[in-house]
Amino acid sequence: MSKSRVEAFSDGVFAIAITLLVLTVAQPRTYRDLAHELGTQWPSLAAYIVSFAVIGIMWINHHSVFINLEHVDRGLLYINLLLLMTIAFLPYPTGVLGQALAKGQGTRTAAVVYGVVMAINAYAWGGLWLYAARHRRLLRADFPENERATATLLFTFGVVAYTLSVGVAFLNAYAFLALQGAQAVYYAFDPISRRAARQGPAEQEGQDTAGESDPPV
Amino acid sequence: MSKSRVEAFSDGVFAIAITLLVLTVAQPRTYRDLAHELGTQWPSLAAYIVSFAVIGIMWINHHSVFINLEHVDRGLLYINLLLLMTIAFLPYPTGVLGQALAKGQGTRTAAVVYGVVMAINAYAWGGLWLYAARHRRLLRADFPENERATATLLFTFGVVAYTLSVGVAFLNAYAFLALQGAQAVYYAFDPISRRAARQGPAEQEGQDTAGESDPPV
Amino acid sequence: MSKSRVEAFSDGVFAIAITLLVLTVAQPRTYRDLAHELGTQWPSLAAYIVSFAVIGIMWINHHSVFINLEHVDRGLLYINLLLLMTIAFLPYPTGVLGQALAKGQGTRTAAVVYGVVMAINAYAWGGLWLYAARHRRLLRADFPENERATATLLFTFGVVAYTLSVGVAFLNAYAFLALQGAQAVYYAFDPISRRAARQGPAEQEGQDTAGESDPPV
Amino acid sequence: MSKSRVEAFSDGVFAIAITLLVLTVAQPRTYRDLAHELGTQWPSLAAYIVSFAVIGIMWINHHSVFINLEHVDRGLLYINLLLLMTIAFLPYPTGVLGQALAKGQGTRTAAVVYGVVMAINAYAWGGLWLYAARHRRLLRADFPENERATATLLFTFGVVAYTLSVGVAFLNAYAFLALQGAQAVYYAFDPISRRAARQGPAEQEGQDTAGESDPPV
Repeated sequence: MSKSRVEAFSDGVFAIAITLLVLTVAQPRTYRDLAHELGTQWPSLAAYIVSFAVIGIMWINHHSVFINLEHVDRGLLYINLLLLMTIAFLPYPTGVLGQALAKGQGTRTAAVVYGVVMAINAYAWGGLWLYAARHRRLLRADFPENERATATLLFTFGVVAYTLSVGVAFLNAYAFLALQGAQAVYYAFDPISRRAARQGPAEQEGQDTAGESDPPV
Repeated sequence: MSKSRVEAFSDGVFAIAITLLVLTVAQPRTYRDLAHELGTQWPSLAAYIVSFAVIGIMWINHHSVFINLEHVDRGLLYINLLLLMTIAFLPYPTGVLGQALAKGQGTRTAAVVYGVVMAINAYAWGGLWLYAARHRRLLRADFPENERATATLLFTFGVVAYTLSVGVAFLNAYAFLALQGAQAVYYAFDPISRRAARQGPAEQEGQDTAGESDPPV
Repeated sequence: MSKSRVEAFSDGVFAIAITLLVLTVAQPRTYRDLAHELGTQWPSLAAYIVSFAVIGIMWINHHSVFINLEHVDRGLLYINLLLLMTIAFLPYPTGVLGQALAKGQGTRTAAVVYGVVMAINAYAWGGLWLYAARHRRLLRADFPENERATATLLFTFGVVAYTLSVGVAFLNAYAFLALQGAQAVYYAFDPISRRAARQGPAEQEGQDTAGESDPPV
Repeated sequence: MSKSRVEAFSDGVFAIAITLLVLTVAQPRTYRDLAHELGTQWPSLAAYIVSFAVIGIMWINHHSVFINLEHVDRGLLYINLLLLMTIAFLPYPTGVLGQALAKGQGTRTAAVVYGVVMAINAYAWGGLWLYAARHRRLLRADFPENERATATLLFTFGVVAYTLSVGVAFLNAYAFLALQGAQAVYYAFDPISRRAARQGPAEQEGQDTAGESDPPV
């Protein structure tokens, strides 16, 4: 399986999951006083926005990791499938959390479910990175050794942070949702993501731009 | 992140959102007098057609903008994610507006919700363009300076027009829906869209056609 | 807009619509006597299979047409969007027809709705072809003149056949569904489809196989 | 139709079906005691995980087969459509089986339905392989003759195994679900899958890596 194939399939799952999310926004139960009805369902919209940001930013970071791989092997393929499962599954806890908050029932249970899915996701990310980076198994030769250490640290930190988030879910579902949003924003600006955004066309489309030396951003 | 990757992901979201729209068409509540039942639900179909046109034409215009970018950076990446969110979310207000019109309840509220989503969308388009075009930050060297001014004017006009549309939504939901359809048709024929349609294969598939000088259409 | 871009977007819509179809299969209303319940819903499955064949075969024929285009222009872009709308919409009449047949209510109305969607689809196909082929506007130089006449005849025949099918829908919904299945199978074997299947990699992936002369199948 | 086009379309269907699966997970009927409610619905989650693994691993094996094809013809195209239909349809029996197990009603019927879909899927896989491999009709010249015999044996075994699984479905739905999971895992490690994972970028992206001799994994 070529790396570009795995990336295209992963991109597809990210794009579908992020678009399917809209189906989790609670439909109005009554149209009689629609403004009020939609007003009571704002948590459903908030959960939608947080999950959209989570998946969108993870899509960017997924490329960030894959850009630095020389090739893929079957071990990586299966870890990647596990990672994609947590992302493809995210619409479910998103819908449940939004509904629970709107109803004011089962909010902490719903938050814990969301938190556990995100924690498994963090473990999959960490596993993917450790598998690829240990002894530089799948890394490109030009990937700097010091960035490897930094990334390992960051992924380990992610595992700890998302595990601890489950604890927040036990306390308060609104605080949990805000925390998830903040964590997504953090990952939009962390070194891994920055590296992804910095990658110019030269690296991915060698045949088009070979010889150019454009350092975008 | 390479430009082609962002375009492929965006294309995916456009294609999924435009196809998911069909799930917003109201299911018959009874099959006893199906012809009459479907007849009462024609606004749901009208909303579907308008939203389909909106997304389809925006997909064309999205290419129009990206064709003229030299590369992408992380700022653009996040503005583009916001833009995609308004498109991926469109099935929700489409379904609500269709249902509200069919029921004759909450029509103006539903139209306002649709209008606000489209206004945010227009702001995202404007932001995307201003971000890319200011000081020609991300524009291709061969993009004519006079077209840059025209495009900035048009995107600004779009922001104003879609903001004013929300006012129409407060007055009458049918007039609002017709206006949205008209605006979509306008964008199918405006200079930006025309430029997109005019782009031949030579520009996007350099490796295939290098050396050819085909100016299709 | 490059031809390959339009094809990729169209492929996406075909793939999503064909996969979304599964959501139209009626869910069991009761699990108490599931075997009997599923038995009563077999028309829902029959409608699914027919629509799956329709979309799958149209996908093949879509390529058949596009392979023979030299480039695309904005007129074609909008006709293609209309064509894609009829395909993306197909899950709706599929679900309604399956439900109507399972309930034994509104069957002819449901069949007429399905038939009208397919007739509009046939008009879009005809329009797409006439637009591209008239005066060989968009055709490749190597497309044989005699095949152009044959294809025009076949698309015209399709318009007539699918329009007449609506008449059958007025008579009997089961006969209509069987006819739709038969028409799909016909298009799997007609000259246009045969031409598509005959196309080898040499024509589409010039850079890989330039110089080879492989006439697969 | 070029091979890469068929692969891209198939990849799309795999990616959409695997992501749509999340819609089959039973929504909570009540949020009053959400923890208990979700607890009673664990079979729905178990069915989700099994189907996710089934589709993910089949996606890998689909590439494994197509990598070894020299080109595709129309016969293969239609067998592949049948194969894709069984995969695109899988969300339906997944949802029904999950619901039946959660309700404790109609479990064996639901398992038989799932089993029959998987058996048809196995027949489609077998048919695809026999069609492509008989007299080496579509195989690459460098595909080893001894692997051809092994693969034929394995696909035949698959047909037998999945047919027998339907018998297990008649006995016990939980045992059936566990068996399906085990069969998916088996196919993640069988010789066909191993061969797929072993394929390096050199074979699929000739233009990038021509001249390199990297045997990843």
